[in-house]
Amino acid sequence: MEILSSIIEPNDSKILLVVIDGLGGLPKNGRTELETARTPNLDRLAKESSLGLVIPISPGVTPGSAPAHLALFGYDPIQTQIGRGLLEALGVGLDVTPKDLCVRANFATIDENGYVLDRRAGRITTEENKRLCAKLAKTIKYIEDVEVIIRPGKEHRCAIMFRGEGLVAELNDTDPQHEGKKPLEVNALTARSAKSAKIVNAFLRWAKNILADEPKANFILLRGFAQYPQIEPMGERFKIRPACIATYPMYKGIAKLVGMAVLPTGDTWDDEIKTLAQYQADYDFFYLHFKEVDKMGEDGNFEGKVKLLEDFDKELPKILELNFSVLCITSDHSTPALLKSHSWHPNPLLLFSRTCRASKIKEFNERTCAYGGLGILKATEVMPLLLASALKLKKFGP
Amino acid sequence: MEILSSIIEPNDSKILLVVIDGLGGLPKNGRTELETARTPNLDRLAKESSLGLVIPISPGVTPGSAPAHLALFGYDPIQTQIGRGLLEALGVGLDVTPKDLCVRANFATIDENGYVLDRRAGRITTEENKRLCAKLAKTIKYIEDVEVIIRPGKEHRCAIMFRGEGLVAELNDTDPQHEGKKPLEVNALTARSAKSAKIVNAFLRWAKNILADEPKANFILLRGFAQYPQIEPMGERFKIRPACIATYPMYKGIAKLVGMAVLPTGDTWDDEIKTLAQYQADYDFFYLHFKEVDKMGEDGNFEGKVKLLEDFDKELPKILELNFSVLCITSDHSTPALLKSHSWHPNPLLLFSRTCRASKIKEFNERTCAYGGLGILKATEVMPLLLASALKLKKFGP
Repeated sequence: MEILSSIIEPNDSKILLVVIDGLGGLPKNGRTELETARTPNLDRLAKESSLGLVIPISPGVTPGSAPAHLALFGYDPIQTQIGRGLLEALGVGLDVTPKDLCVRANFATIDENGYVLDRRAGRITTEENKRLCAKLAKTIKYIEDVEVIIRPGKEHRCAIMFRGEGLVAELNDTDPQHEGKKPLEVNALTARSAKSAKIVNAFLRWAKNILADEPKANFILLRGFAQYPQIEPMGERFKIRPACIATYPMYKGIAKLVGMAVLPTGDTWDDEIKTLAQYQADYDFFYLHFKEVDKMGEDGNFEGKVKLLEDFDKELPKILELNFSVLCITSDHSTPALLKSHSWHPNPLLLFSRTCRASKIKEFNERTCAYGGLGILKATEVMPLLLASALKLKKFGP
Repeated sequence: MEILSSIIEPNDSKILLVVIDGLGGLPKNGRTELETARTPNLDRLAKESSLGLVIPISPGVTPGSAPAHLALFGYDPIQTQIGRGLLEALGVGLDVTPKDLCVRANFATIDENGYVLDRRAGRITTEENKRLCAKLAKTIKYIEDVEVIIRPGKEHRCAIMFRGEGLVAELNDTDPQHEGKKPLEVNALTARSAKSAKIVNAFLRWAKNILADEPKANFILLRGFAQYPQIEPMGERFKIRPACIATYPMYKGIAKLVGMAVLPTGDTWDDEIKTLAQYQADYDFFYLHFKEVDKMGEDGNFEGKVKLLEDFDKELPKILELNFSVLCITSDHSTPALLKSHSWHPNPLLLFSRTCRASKIKEFNERTCAYGGLGILKATEVMPLLLASALKLKKFGP
């Protein structure tokens, strides 16, 4: 990676990185979700593409979405670690600055003695969430000299940002992680974070009073206090104009963090592909994120994941019509329905461009990609390959 | 590796790492030892397992047993180097402390002029070795303030440990490596090791006198002066309860060094597997070592190695009956009969668990493992994979 910056040579070629979130799986009756799905378009494309497997971080390590995406975007996910609260804040569209303290919040249900009955308040709707955030924001605007900004996410999640001088993220989570336990107080983990702890605890007391009459969402649990890290924007790092098309806040947040333009789009895959076509002329690197496959994996819904992969395959011709110079289809991490969670297993990767070696392999899945010509890559190696395939990298050395 | 400690999440799943020492080979008449052997049980298991190849250290580097095992156990074999003398001492059951200076000794035959006739004293029996060690130990107890501890190993090998203040391992070997040469004096390679050199030379003169009337073993050659390194025990590092089942001292020694419990067992593979069954409930990581395959390779006995691999295959069902959550079969290094020595060639690896992607590959050998879904791994990457497969690793990052 250290030599990369010295060999970047920008040109007008356009790169499309399609991330099918949670793509990789594990077999049920001998076949993974992707092996089970009928994907004639992907299979046809695989034959003309270079194939490989992508290890998100390193063998055995299951990544969260943030490090998995950072690695795909060409950043060392160990060196550059970002907090959950920051991601959530960016994802809901907050304009985070270095003096902000961000945290991710769940609306939750507690009983009359303060014990957590439901950490997700019955997974309230996003509409309900908006109402609750507005109710809190109407009253809580400042605590001492610190501005409090509350923004709804999806379902039961929201982002809270404390803006003021001397705020530090060295604070513990209040989420007890299990129902039947009491939420924790916020403690300053270092002397530097004493002010932050005081402000946040005051916020929690105030929020509890305001939410006291709510039947479900009568409390807030906080997780992942975080501040803004130093990240060199992709545009500078790779001399590209990068853009993100995603529907979920967290992925937009990660994209913003690395300096991508986050394009307005709708809620469906069709919307996202239309957005891609619409903005194709304006950028030369697109990150196109399809979230729903991952959710099916998380839910343990093998057949649902198969169905969505088949749906993706049907959308693929619309993407191919756009004739990107370089098209890469891969994922941030596997989400096998069998495990109902992210996993460490490597992901299939397909790289299609004028400069690729066609695999002649007639199927796109975990098994066939294992013997594709790209081998088993680390996710951080994908970005250099995409840049090279678009002829955006010069020769190294004389 | 640096993030591994932060994501360990212990559970009760049991991992079995089977090391068939010297497994990998080179072809004779177009087929390696493993390809030649009829191994129906391994082949059947391979189909349901993930396969890969393991590079012991890095491409082209042939490892000794110590670094090869350390790497498999998840330790950087470059950072953590351990001396042969230390291994031998641990292997024979000596309780090594930081103030001990260990060395591996061979009984040898020298002629009346002091030239080495046989570096292994005609490979005397272990019984004979015991008698000789007792004879030495009866007289040599202290040299100045340094205690001398002599313990027989197998055949012509023994361990000698010097215990005292100010001992340092910066000393040369005395073994001239070739018959017809004279043994070397011990020299202090640094000023710090002057005392050690003096003590060891005094020991050698004394031993020569005591052994003068022996027909074969009339001298001792020393190799691999070593002291105790700093190694974090596997139990702490990976939050597992690790145990070793091995028949040869050196492997028990390495296991002790990384903090494994060394279980008492017999001399045969059947004994080892019985020990495994007997202690299965008491530990959650087992290192099961099968030595003899390596010896056949070292002897250049291709057919003998084939035969032992077939024998191993017959034992495999007994191992499978024990239903480990994660079963890994691989090796520390290749020992091709063609080379009569360890080699750098990667080793087949088979990983069987509920969380693995079945390879559907119907044979287990060097060639088929090259296109298994695990790819070509470094030995240090095996341990994280085993822990992940046993669901003993949490997600990294948000």
